[in-house]
Amino acid sequence: MSTTINVPPGLRNVVVTETTLGDVRGDEGFYHYRQYSAVDLAKSKTLEDVWFLLFEGHLPTGAERDRFIADLAPLRVLPDEVRAVLPAIAAAGPTFNPLAGLRTALSLLAASKNLPPLWDADPARRKADAMLVCAVTPTILAALHRLREGQEPLEPRADLTAAANWLYLVTGKVPTAVEASAIEHYLIATVDHGFNASTFTARVITSTGADLVSAVAGAIGAFSGPLHGGAPDRALASLDEIGTPDRIDAWVRAKVEAGDRIMGFGHAVYRTEDPRSLMLRDIARGPLSQSPLNQNDGGDLVDFATTVEQRIVDVLAELKPGRNLYANVEFYAGVVMEICGIPRAMFTPTFAVSRVIGWSANILEQAADPKIIRPSAQYVGPPPPAPVE
Amino acid sequence: MSTTINVPPGLRNVVVTETTLGDVRGDEGFYHYRQYSAVDLAKSKTLEDVWFLLFEGHLPTGAERDRFIADLAPLRVLPDEVRAVLPAIAAAGPTFNPLAGLRTALSLLAASKNLPPLWDADPARRKADAMLVCAVTPTILAALHRLREGQEPLEPRADLTAAANWLYLVTGKVPTAVEASAIEHYLIATVDHGFNASTFTARVITSTGADLVSAVAGAIGAFSGPLHGGAPDRALASLDEIGTPDRIDAWVRAKVEAGDRIMGFGHAVYRTEDPRSLMLRDIARGPLSQSPLNQNDGGDLVDFATTVEQRIVDVLAELKPGRNLYANVEFYAGVVMEICGIPRAMFTPTFAVSRVIGWSANILEQAADPKIIRPSAQYVGPPPPAPVE
Repeated sequence: MSTTINVPPGLRNVVVTETTLGDVRGDEGFYHYRQYSAVDLAKSKTLEDVWFLLFEGHLPTGAERDRFIADLAPLRVLPDEVRAVLPAIAAAGPTFNPLAGLRTALSLLAASKNLPPLWDADPARRKADAMLVCAVTPTILAALHRLREGQEPLEPRADLTAAANWLYLVTGKVPTAVEASAIEHYLIATVDHGFNASTFTARVITSTGADLVSAVAGAIGAFSGPLHGGAPDRALASLDEIGTPDRIDAWVRAKVEAGDRIMGFGHAVYRTEDPRSLMLRDIARGPLSQSPLNQNDGGDLVDFATTVEQRIVDVLAELKPGRNLYANVEFYAGVVMEICGIPRAMFTPTFAVSRVIGWSANILEQAADPKIIRPSAQYVGPPPPAPVE
Repeated sequence: MSTTINVPPGLRNVVVTETTLGDVRGDEGFYHYRQYSAVDLAKSKTLEDVWFLLFEGHLPTGAERDRFIADLAPLRVLPDEVRAVLPAIAAAGPTFNPLAGLRTALSLLAASKNLPPLWDADPARRKADAMLVCAVTPTILAALHRLREGQEPLEPRADLTAAANWLYLVTGKVPTAVEASAIEHYLIATVDHGFNASTFTARVITSTGADLVSAVAGAIGAFSGPLHGGAPDRALASLDEIGTPDRIDAWVRAKVEAGDRIMGFGHAVYRTEDPRSLMLRDIARGPLSQSPLNQNDGGDLVDFATTVEQRIVDVLAELKPGRNLYANVEFYAGVVMEICGIPRAMFTPTFAVSRVIGWSANILEQAADPKIIRPSAQYVGPPPPAPVE
């Protein structure tokens, strides 16, 4: 018999692979892409720069950046075969399920583009497939949204950055510089984040040698799970539920008493404040707070959110001492997106627009290591063989 | 810092979970579903019986079996929303990609049926969703095949068993009892097989609380990978390539010298003969060998296959001593399917028809354990933070 190896539940802290893509230092409140602080990158670089960094291993020169942007433009355009089926995909179901819609469309794309297994593809082909999937993902998601709303999809605009183009495709308006910058910070900050369940899923599927979309489609599924974390609309829904500052304490205490999770707070890895949350809070409290949508309901969303955040942290520290529960990326992401005019149904899809780049970088890295990931399970049922009657 | 735990590459022998679904004893050449030998089940039970066993934990009584079969019949019928899009899915791409097509269709089905996250679903709803996905999978796969061939899809027949219905949908003919029995043995024998990469993928996605189709779609992706193993058409292609018995030795030696894998031989877990291969060889050499398709080309496929198998095993034992390389499930599966009239493009889909039941049983089991599977990676790039310029 092979000796089995017992490890903590959920493979916690078990090292599956080596990576040069980045890491999360949960005790330090720090995470990085390659050798750069992710927050520093978000504050000073474009999404395209960071995308290039993850795919190529270094930040682009000016010429590399120009070339990369020129390469991306045609890849954003919906292929005809996908375009033809999008209305049916958008119409499927009583409620709009953008992640399932994206997966359906990408799965169709894989067949229509005849995507080869990663192990039959040379590195250039793998990268080209990854560029296509990442470039077309925003177009698909925005088109599904508009179709669902009874509107014609918009064509992507080559004169806009990836971040501005996303806002344009979803809202129908060219964003202000403040809005585009806010969303670009968010997109960069969420491109990758260590070895989360969707990234791991993408790597497991890649390890079988399957095609790139097989790995991305699996990652989308894991990403859609409520435990994965990544639904900024849930955090904003909490703000709506609370309504006014005087109701915060009662709301938190009732949630904790009922054993419910408080969406937008706590993280699997961080024991400090979430660096993404800190950055997004600064963005919300900066020029973005002057945007008309911040006073949409007569109140001030940013002011209210910061008040709620502080009270929730204080009450959680009292009720769950030692747990170090702080706002996570979801909390201010929802605030930022709301003020930038993104409809709530498109909050999680916005997260997917950036994360697909991180998945793809992980897939490209994993594809270079031809070793299947295949753990074991321990059988604990009645001993076989029993006679079959 | 959290202490990281280093384990063998690919998580080999690392225990991720407990299961009561079954196990593979690679050193004994034995595998089981629940407490029963899988081969014994294949020899004496129907696919519906084994399906019930995996979903419910016990073999059905007569009344339970009748009820189960009655429940399945309507679930086999294509929902209108999927039916409408299938022609576009079938037509996508220069070559037919049935697994991508199945994933696309199931992804659409998930949205159209509004599948809830597994953690929002009670056990009855989870099981109902799993029944639907497993029942409709053969219908989707066969319909895609026929559409691709320019034929109208056939309607599933409630008067046929799951195995016979599959053959009917794919070939357009009600199978003989010998054919239906042969394929039923195969389907039962491949329903589940320990903790392979696709099953593990399904469990990882399930662990995030995502919906059932998210987990199945991920599993399909892993299953499609060349390293997963499960493409009986590849083994049959080898038989074609060899052509005549006198060419076997030269063919094997050339393959081994070139460092190529010999499809249909060797297994990640078995160090003995593969019990599935032994069973399928007996089936091929039994009444099935009298079927007209066994002498399709004037030769005798079963005779040729057994000759080839023996020579390949002998030559491999000589060239790779101590490696214990035997025919795996792919080898005789291809022979059996060919004689039963299944087109080669539908060999791997036939495997998927049974395995989706195993994935679903694993998903149902995993969904009862609310713990995310989230391992770690070790960062080995240049040390951060570097200044962003």
